[in-house]
Amino acid sequence: MKAVLFDVFGTVVDWRTGVAGAVSRFAGEHGLELDAGAFADAWRSRYVPGMRRVISGERPFVPLDMLHRENLDGVLEEFGLHPGRFGPAVLDELNRAWHFLPPWPDSVAGITALKRDYIVGPLSNGNTSLLLDMAKAGGLPWDLILGSDVSKAYKPTMEAYRRPAAMLGLEPGEIMLAAAHEADLAAARMAGLAAAFISRPLEQGPGKPGVGVATQSWDLSVSSITELAGLL
Amino acid sequence: MKAVLFDVFGTVVDWRTGVAGAVSRFAGEHGLELDAGAFADAWRSRYVPGMRRVISGERPFVPLDMLHRENLDGVLEEFGLHPGRFGPAVLDELNRAWHFLPPWPDSVAGITALKRDYIVGPLSNGNTSLLLDMAKAGGLPWDLILGSDVSKAYKPTMEAYRRPAAMLGLEPGEIMLAAAHEADLAAARMAGLAAAFISRPLEQGPGKPGVGVATQSWDLSVSSITELAGLL
Repeated sequence: MKAVLFDVFGTVVDWRTGVAGAVSRFAGEHGLELDAGAFADAWRSRYVPGMRRVISGERPFVPLDMLHRENLDGVLEEFGLHPGRFGPAVLDELNRAWHFLPPWPDSVAGITALKRDYIVGPLSNGNTSLLLDMAKAGGLPWDLILGSDVSKAYKPTMEAYRRPAAMLGLEPGEIMLAAAHEADLAAARMAGLAAAFISRPLEQGPGKPGVGVATQSWDLSVSSITELAGLL
Repeated sequence: MKAVLFDVFGTVVDWRTGVAGAVSRFAGEHGLELDAGAFADAWRSRYVPGMRRVISGERPFVPLDMLHRENLDGVLEEFGLHPGRFGPAVLDELNRAWHFLPPWPDSVAGITALKRDYIVGPLSNGNTSLLLDMAKAGGLPWDLILGSDVSKAYKPTMEAYRRPAAMLGLEPGEIMLAAAHEADLAAARMAGLAAAFISRPLEQGPGKPGVGVATQSWDLSVSSITELAGLL
């Protein structure tokens, strides 16, 4: 094993808290009454359907920033707000909430520890500039950042795992993917990578039964990145 | 200015000392009498002609590792050594000398200082895995590494400067290229980047007149990366 690459949204950072915080500030500035957590959930729920159109070839690859931005319009409508009532710069700024998500408490320490002996980096559907902003703001000490706009492929397509491996000059089997989502791990395994499950029971907010529980057996199964670093 | 990107070979690392050291070890292991400095110079002198065939479109883009490896065969012949007398693994290993070049004494401190306020990264003709090995071995604290295999373009073509800018989500004018080579700076300026000259009088070994002297005026002109960090 030479590299440990990470799913990011939910695995390394707490997207729900970060997005809900930005939505809450947006609501305050515009005098809106919004359930910020529900808004974040609704925004996130459009993530997979939006990517699916790219994965299926229905539309060409576009960066995740653009999908998030399109999905934001849909969520606003869903919450009874016409996107046109806000300036484009305001919505672009809200969209950048996804660039500045807070790391889970163990993420920086765990990645720092792994960096001593392994190449560490994201293997995320986020675009490079998004992951870069997030790393700078959150202090994530990645060795390198190759966003999905480098391979122009979204997980769980095989290219999304294999192209980064090739760019690192590594065989897929020399890389471990660490992720909180089993579909991601299953695809990584199919692409030849090792797979570590990281339990993030709070990813979808408190009190969601079943979240953070693995249903399959993985090469490693841990409850934090520091625990992963201790095992490797 | 939001990002300071660096030419690497000669600007951040001392390629001649690093390559000559590896050649010297190779010669020792195989009982050869070689002028290691002259061998390094000859290898480097094939760099631009090798890339020119890619830049001109005469051949498709191939990673710099492959060009270095092809050029190694030519240099061996030039020094009266038939490449076939060494196993391919031996020459591949020697070729990896370019992955492990020592930083100049000011490079790590200077990049570390710049990293507080700017995005820092290489803007090099090296491929990603080469730049990654170099960063891990030399402690270069890049925020991200996008090798020439990401943009599939070699400097000084315009795409080699503009595609990384687009992936960073920045306008060219928000990026400064720091380089010891004026042709590189001239092309960066043409692509819209700011340009800082870093004088490296020892790049081609001691006592080479003219090396490290700027013949044009640049946005900044300094003699170390720490000096650059002090000015920005």
